[in-house]
Amino acid sequence: MSFDLTSYLDTRADQVNDALMRIFDSGSAPAVPTRIQEAMTYSLMAGGKRIRPILCIAAAEALGLPPTPHILTAACAIEVLHTYSLIHDDLPAMDNDRLRRGKPTNHIAFDETTAILAGDALLTLAFELLSAIPAKGHKEGKALLDIIHTLSRAAGYKGIIEGQMQDLAAEDIRLSLEELEAMHALKTGALIGASVYAGAVLGEGSITQIEQLGRYARHIGLAFQVADDILNVEGDTAVMGKVAGTDKHRGKSTYPSLLGMDESKAFEKKLVNNALKALADFDRRADPLRSIAVFIIERRK
Amino acid sequence: MSFDLTSYLDTRADQVNDALMRIFDSGSAPAVPTRIQEAMTYSLMAGGKRIRPILCIAAAEALGLPPTPHILTAACAIEVLHTYSLIHDDLPAMDNDRLRRGKPTNHIAFDETTAILAGDALLTLAFELLSAIPAKGHKEGKALLDIIHTLSRAAGYKGIIEGQMQDLAAEDIRLSLEELEAMHALKTGALIGASVYAGAVLGEGSITQIEQLGRYARHIGLAFQVADDILNVEGDTAVMGKVAGTDKHRGKSTYPSLLGMDESKAFEKKLVNNALKALADFDRRADPLRSIAVFIIERRK
Repeated sequence: MSFDLTSYLDTRADQVNDALMRIFDSGSAPAVPTRIQEAMTYSLMAGGKRIRPILCIAAAEALGLPPTPHILTAACAIEVLHTYSLIHDDLPAMDNDRLRRGKPTNHIAFDETTAILAGDALLTLAFELLSAIPAKGHKEGKALLDIIHTLSRAAGYKGIIEGQMQDLAAEDIRLSLEELEAMHALKTGALIGASVYAGAVLGEGSITQIEQLGRYARHIGLAFQVADDILNVEGDTAVMGKVAGTDKHRGKSTYPSLLGMDESKAFEKKLVNNALKALADFDRRADPLRSIAVFIIERRK
Repeated sequence: MSFDLTSYLDTRADQVNDALMRIFDSGSAPAVPTRIQEAMTYSLMAGGKRIRPILCIAAAEALGLPPTPHILTAACAIEVLHTYSLIHDDLPAMDNDRLRRGKPTNHIAFDETTAILAGDALLTLAFELLSAIPAKGHKEGKALLDIIHTLSRAAGYKGIIEGQMQDLAAEDIRLSLEELEAMHALKTGALIGASVYAGAVLGEGSITQIEQLGRYARHIGLAFQVADDILNVEGDTAVMGKVAGTDKHRGKSTYPSLLGMDESKAFEKKLVNNALKALADFDRRADPLRSIAVFIIERRK
């Protein structure tokens, strides 16, 4: 593929970052940010790669819709919700992490109380943003309600939260491959699926196209997790921005621990190929999505 | 007023409880509840009086709309969100309360990790419920997005969460009356306002009617807080289901501590009268709202 992914990711990440900053610049916000706003923006602007919002944008682009302000708002809502889940995951009562992307986690930079509330506020903000997108007609209104419903289900007690419960319960327990895959499908797959779905619905995809993009999302969602597990073993702390080898230290089941390293890499490759196959009916406007799938493996090199 | 409030509150609370139970009875839920579901329903079914959802229902009734399944779903969303805020408020990093409504708080009955996640899940569920209400036409769709927007703003970093930040920062500090009122407007007033607003919008009130119901909500919201402060001094632990005198123990500013008891009771009465005045243009169908306002003072007797 001749597609320049690095330049694409940089451009889209800049657009997402600009849109995220504007959320707190609105006229109704106080001139001096409150402590809760400071805590929210601290984690929101901590250098995330914006993969989920870019997937939302790229899914809409695959259907011919450029990154309009509405798409960017939906993309921001997804990143805001993702940031909430990171802040709460890092809490002392959860993974008790002190470092994230090379910076102190929210409860270290602020305090536990503020970190819990900043997470709550970001989760709430995701729905404030989505519900503020203007709906000109019945179709647009229904699409927004559909996206809110999909995102809330993905984030809820049958999605991310159940995944986190299973993940925490699984420390020092050897999961089966099926259990590991089910846990990841909830903990990380659901939100990646919702990100692509939001872009697909706003891009007014047909039922078939939305289904194909959903298949793409399921495969890259799992591929990302396998790649993360591999990185956790092979990566170095400086590149990752967090301490390498933490999974093993915590006794967590991972793909390398269940399958071995070679088979994990083969599995990851198969998932990426399946993701590409799901996009077979799409034209070159789906190249960003295709390149992102390939990038999952490439980013280690 | 000859209106039988006790019977009204019992009937409506039963309807809300039935609707809340049905959320988790849906066909897609697993037969054996997960631990996160158990934690969610534990606090949701811990004997709350359902004042907020009943205010939503009563506001719609004041406009002539009976408690339809859609109204009940919106009412449940509000109670579910309220329950999240109670669970997180009780956490060790917040108020560190061990008892709520005479029962162990969520993090005592389960654990801190589960309590944080159960709160997160309930907050998310509120938006899942609202976005699942079917919108037949453009008007209904816009109304639902409007309610989601109002509720998320009320719950967010310029609403409940900022109120909680201010409340926690104010321990052992003597607030001015203005600061105390501003804090309560955010911490409890915003959600009471959103509850009434949801009923008013679903009941298809005119702009004037929605404004009048909003004025009613602002006055009873504050009256509830003044009444709570009075109860915290005069109440006994058995009736309240929590330990009396805790506000004084924590060095929190309250209406009795700033105004004295007599003036607090006069202020509370004035607020209730203003709430009743806001309903002057409404007919007898607003009697439930009127009786609830009067009940705020009466419940101590």
